Amino acid sequence: MSLDTPVAKPHDRLAATLDADLAEVNALIRARMASKHAPRIPEVTAHLVDAGGKRLRPMLTLAAARMCGYGGPYHVHLAATVEFIHTATLLHDDVVDESAQRRGRPTANLLWDNKSSVLVGDYLFARAFQLMTETGNLRVLNILSDAAATIAEGEVLQLTAAQNLATTEAIYLQVVRGKTAALFSAATEVGGVIAGADDAQVQALFDYGDALGIAFQIVDDLLDYQGDAKATGKNVGDDFRERKLTLPVIKAVAMADAEERAFWSRTIEKGDQRDGDLDHALDLLHRHGTLDATRTEALTWAEKAKAAILTLPESDLRDMLADLSDYVVARIN
Amino acid sequence: MSLDTPVAKPHDRLAATLDADLAEVNALIRARMASKHAPRIPEVTAHLVDAGGKRLRPMLTLAAARMCGYGGPYHVHLAATVEFIHTATLLHDDVVDESAQRRGRPTANLLWDNKSSVLVGDYLFARAFQLMTETGNLRVLNILSDAAATIAEGEVLQLTAAQNLATTEAIYLQVVRGKTAALFSAATEVGGVIAGADDAQVQALFDYGDALGIAFQIVDDLLDYQGDAKATGKNVGDDFRERKLTLPVIKAVAMADAEERAFWSRTIEKGDQRDGDLDHALDLLHRHGTLDATRTEALTWAEKAKAAILTLPESDLRDMLADLSDYVVARIN
Repeated sequence: MSLDTPVAKPHDRLAATLDADLAEVNALIRARMASKHAPRIPEVTAHLVDAGGKRLRPMLTLAAARMCGYGGPYHVHLAATVEFIHTATLLHDDVVDESAQRRGRPTANLLWDNKSSVLVGDYLFARAFQLMTETGNLRVLNILSDAAATIAEGEVLQLTAAQNLATTEAIYLQVVRGKTAALFSAATEVGGVIAGADDAQVQALFDYGDALGIAFQIVDDLLDYQGDAKATGKNVGDDFRERKLTLPVIKAVAMADAEERAFWSRTIEKGDQRDGDLDHALDLLHRHGTLDATRTEALTWAEKAKAAILTLPESDLRDMLADLSDYVVARIN
Repeated sequence: MSLDTPVAKPHDRLAATLDADLAEVNALIRARMASKHAPRIPEVTAHLVDAGGKRLRPMLTLAAARMCGYGGPYHVHLAATVEFIHTATLLHDDVVDESAQRRGRPTANLLWDNKSSVLVGDYLFARAFQLMTETGNLRVLNILSDAAATIAEGEVLQLTAAQNLATTEAIYLQVVRGKTAALFSAATEVGGVIAGADDAQVQALFDYGDALGIAFQIVDDLLDYQGDAKATGKNVGDDFRERKLTLPVIKAVAMADAEERAFWSRTIEKGDQRDGDLDHALDLLHRHGTLDATRTEALTWAEKAKAAILTLPESDLRDMLADLSDYVVARIN
């Protein structure tokens, strides 16, 4: 998701404050992405790593560690770990989704091929585990390997939940926690753990990342139906065309009459889509107010994130993270 | 590769000796393969995990740990880790190779789909890292995360090396070390490390696994050109049809005259294959004696494996591993 909007940018303030740390993260990422034996690896990854990724997740780790007073070197390793896991999942998601655009550029699997996307993603996962092992901190290893399992589980759950009208909001939330929030919450949590923060602080950091990630994903799913393709780098209706059951549609299905239900069943479950179907889908979402309801949920999660982070001792970084929770939902507010 | 032959079976003797440990490994694999949230995961993996996998790699870990006097519980975790990494790479390999058979049964991606293969593979990788983290031993974490990176690097290198007649035997060896031997050597090495073996013993265990894995893969590549499809579960000439440049062909290309070179360039580099090409390829391999030369290399690596393991103190398990190195090449001997 692009974070460019004309409003205040806590993201840029974080980047400025964490400037020196971020430079180290970027250097470490470049160094570990290299492969002596397989030059195709940096070719494939450079495309993703340089393509306007805003380093949101690594900044969460750096900010969490710094605001908890960390002075060691390993927050940089953990930030790079988190970015490698994120990039690996993007590569594997490209194979999976056959999505035509990612960050406004052709996906890796159109420039390269499925083989490269799968194997280079595996390489980045392995690099991520090497990096986190170098910290020597078993607790962060537990958190990050648990997160990796939760992410994969969420993606697999999405496979079965998508295209199935029986998917509930509870299952949607589980998918979102897996595919998005698990890495956000691990990113903030390991920042606190590496800094030796106390349990209450680590829990607050986890809760912040969890709620922020959920808000972030709901916004993404909402913008898929009402976003500006130029700003989001996604085409309106991609999720509909890919038959992904996201919150606006789940809510509309729950309110559907027999005829509407038949429409959703044909287009999402059976994948029989015709000209005008997307417009009709948008019409149904508006008619039942589910885009507004989805927007309200995103705002609620952003508020939860802010409330969690504000339990921590006051600091500039804390306030930037609190502002970030507003910012994530600014595009729909 | 199937290890069923009428000759003596060190593999079965290992399985009998390590019976109790193996039962624990199998129980742990079943427990960790389960997913509360995504029931498709065990459906996909059960197909691979139950389908006649002989647990060769986990047995290497168990045997190495036991022969070095280990009495703790973590060799079981490490053996399950190794099998999960192996199964994950098989799943991702299925996506990659579009191979029609794996262990004599349809591949997961024909029964399921590419999406499931990629994401369930990722889940198993994550589960592997959780398991190895539970050992609390940073040295085994280093070894296994390095191995995971080497495996992925080898697979990517294979992508560029395959279909390229400039591929040398040195590059082939690097690919084989990556895609096969890295996990064998990590399997034996971590067995020694978890048991607290001294450096010379750990090195011998590594050397054994490395040479055994190389022999194993060369045999596999050789049998692709001269095996019995019923025994190997592979069709003769799969590698040729998939344009994989393996040792028999690399050696033949090195000895090719202009006309032969044009043949290899057309069939392997350009992928323009016609009726009778496989027969002609086999004819060239026989004419230049490259199948025999490949066989000799496999035997040499098996001897290296045996020599390495025989530097360790005498024990029944040690002798079974020595016999195993003969056994791996028995089908071509």
